[in-house]
Amino acid sequence: MSETISALPTFRAIDVIRKKRDSIELTREEIEGLVNAYTRGDVPDYQVSAWLMAVVLRGMTRPETAALTDAMLRSGEVLDLSSLPQKKVDKHSTGGVGDKTSLVLAPLAAAAGIAVPMISGRGLGHTGGTLDKLEAIPGFNVNLPVTEFRRVLEACGCAMIGQTAEIAPADRKLYALRDVTGTVESPYLICASIMSKKLAEGIDALVLDVKTGSGAFMKSEKDAAFLAELMVETGERMGKQVVALITDMDQPLGKMIGNALEVIEVVEVLRGEGPGDLRELCLHLAGWMLHLGGVSKTVAEGTKLSSELISSGKALDKFRHMIELQGGDARVVDDTTRLLQARRTSQIVSPKSGVISSMQRKEDSVDPAVGIVLHKKVGERVESQEPLATVYYNSEARAEQARLLIVDSIQIADAAPAKRPLIHRVIQKSGEKH
Amino acid sequence: MSETISALPTFRAIDVIRKKRDSIELTREEIEGLVNAYTRGDVPDYQVSAWLMAVVLRGMTRPETAALTDAMLRSGEVLDLSSLPQKKVDKHSTGGVGDKTSLVLAPLAAAAGIAVPMISGRGLGHTGGTLDKLEAIPGFNVNLPVTEFRRVLEACGCAMIGQTAEIAPADRKLYALRDVTGTVESPYLICASIMSKKLAEGIDALVLDVKTGSGAFMKSEKDAAFLAELMVETGERMGKQVVALITDMDQPLGKMIGNALEVIEVVEVLRGEGPGDLRELCLHLAGWMLHLGGVSKTVAEGTKLSSELISSGKALDKFRHMIELQGGDARVVDDTTRLLQARRTSQIVSPKSGVISSMQRKEDSVDPAVGIVLHKKVGERVESQEPLATVYYNSEARAEQARLLIVDSIQIADAAPAKRPLIHRVIQKSGEKH
Repeated sequence: MSETISALPTFRAIDVIRKKRDSIELTREEIEGLVNAYTRGDVPDYQVSAWLMAVVLRGMTRPETAALTDAMLRSGEVLDLSSLPQKKVDKHSTGGVGDKTSLVLAPLAAAAGIAVPMISGRGLGHTGGTLDKLEAIPGFNVNLPVTEFRRVLEACGCAMIGQTAEIAPADRKLYALRDVTGTVESPYLICASIMSKKLAEGIDALVLDVKTGSGAFMKSEKDAAFLAELMVETGERMGKQVVALITDMDQPLGKMIGNALEVIEVVEVLRGEGPGDLRELCLHLAGWMLHLGGVSKTVAEGTKLSSELISSGKALDKFRHMIELQGGDARVVDDTTRLLQARRTSQIVSPKSGVISSMQRKEDSVDPAVGIVLHKKVGERVESQEPLATVYYNSEARAEQARLLIVDSIQIADAAPAKRPLIHRVIQKSGEKH
Repeated sequence: MSETISALPTFRAIDVIRKKRDSIELTREEIEGLVNAYTRGDVPDYQVSAWLMAVVLRGMTRPETAALTDAMLRSGEVLDLSSLPQKKVDKHSTGGVGDKTSLVLAPLAAAAGIAVPMISGRGLGHTGGTLDKLEAIPGFNVNLPVTEFRRVLEACGCAMIGQTAEIAPADRKLYALRDVTGTVESPYLICASIMSKKLAEGIDALVLDVKTGSGAFMKSEKDAAFLAELMVETGERMGKQVVALITDMDQPLGKMIGNALEVIEVVEVLRGEGPGDLRELCLHLAGWMLHLGGVSKTVAEGTKLSSELISSGKALDKFRHMIELQGGDARVVDDTTRLLQARRTSQIVSPKSGVISSMQRKEDSVDPAVGIVLHKKVGERVESQEPLATVYYNSEARAEQARLLIVDSIQIADAAPAKRPLIHRVIQKSGEKH
């Protein structure tokens, strides 16, 4: 094994590894050199994984984090959407069970006159991804080439696709390496991964939904706030308007879990129905998108306008239009039985009377082939033998696993637990808190 | 990139990486699993380098260090020298400029009736290795197969060869990876690397010479003592008698530097001549080898006996015999002009009068093609234009580099600096200090 030296004679990967190991701040050039050389294949995996572990354990300064984000962003194509007259605003969530807000927000913000060029990922670990949910709509194509993506965006103001080979290739390569080397869990690397992909969309502003609680990647509010501040500051350093909301993920969002069921709940919210927590979070996030997009003077005004766009049916029309443009069966909006869903159902009843005190999610993943509809949420009263949830399934064995998971997750107590706010706090500009 | 899983279904490299990253103590089975899977090629470099960086930054407990040493030791052949009637004792030095004690100690201890099965390395960084020095003797073969090594050992009580493919293959693979991933500098990894190779020699006892000072790998005495205690404890955990001497490396050891010149100085010491510091250190280390080898009741008695074996010419005879058995020209012992050395010489004179206050070595390596004879050492008085050193060389360009290095290294002051002891301390059994 011999030391690999990049094309630039002054750049040596080993020096960059040693500096990070010894907690010496890296320069923009060093970070850029490492990312570019790795993307080109000029630095081997074993050097980068050592560097990644040093980053996990030593951390990064804010300028280092911004330099890493920038290098990853510029490792591929950066969309130029300047020909679109609207402000370009996107939203990103760190994910949690039942989080289907993206599917509501893209058409809702588009209905308000904002362009939403949303490039999303697959499900990671215990939650389904936006792409998986969209694919429950028959025919919906999430693999549009960039030219087609732009055409849909121009035509209806929103478009939703998966990551393309052209966008931030460094992130794809680094993420695959992080996944197998125990280097996923670093706020600096998470920030650079999220922000590099989102800023490659050519957006003006970004609303971040950072989850906290037992069902979130960041269990503690402190960790969630740290990541949120890091992303907001990194975005600002790169000349973008970024706001982060720390929101609750101590129980699933809404009542439906599973790709097809979640699309049903999205349609419900766009019809002005659906569960309160999901509706409230969507309206609040939409308020911020409209405000950052220059459509409303305040967030409250943006929320109000969003609510009106739902009542008038304009948001649902946008969703219908986008589905159509991306090859999907738009009739699902009016007839959700057309969604690809499991055929069989089974009830889970409460073993005793009381109040749901916790629906703590485990690390275990929810089987994507199984859907769950929750009939009760935390704080609600339940009687013995009353239905707690319905499981949708095709395979009996998988249904049994899901049933065990649910029974194991739901705790019933005598009294209601203290109510947790849905939105814990808002982080904007240089750590300013709302 | 997919996660690599070893043959054992319960062992996953990623879990071992994550535990070390999170400072959770690894079990013997986990460490053994990782080392064995890596040696077999079942775990990729990029996972092991991430783990190594986590070890560098998180450290290891004593049981973890012993488990790593043991796994590396057992990754290859462990010599069984039980057929030899003598006690088997070796010596290892962490290295420094001018350190040629191994070449004195092997024949000296053998002359006292101890078996010294010495397997050494090449020079690393700024110092020549024992093998490089031996190869200055025409014909000397350091690449004997194990059967031949054993034959020499049986015939004369000592044998000196290079690492074979059979001994601790895990160390060779890990060291190559550490070298290019910034993970050399960890006392735990250094300990496991040294101890696994030495204990694979099938020895009963080991004397460690851990250098400290500006010319040593471990600059501070604290770091040197930490490594020494770690190696002593690891050896004891593995049922071996181990002692470590922390010795001074603030200036080169002896007066001759360079492979051929160092053999000359070895012959001088074995003749009862040579520079005081080198002679003193050799006698002291030999005293410990004889004591641990059961030849003398005390270290002082071992030192006295060693001195007698030099005076009587028996140590030099052993050296002659070993050279002969390993195919070398034993006449070099009586006629050192037969050594492979540079042809041309050049004097370096002092620019001013004063006292040598420092001969600090830089990180820069001494060119192995150039030899240096120091005429003055730290604390000695020098007059303006008096010779400081003689450079032996073949290439004018390389001689000039060496001259600059020497001029740059030697500091001349008005008064003598405080004298540093040659032996700082002795570390034996569970951190007990002498």
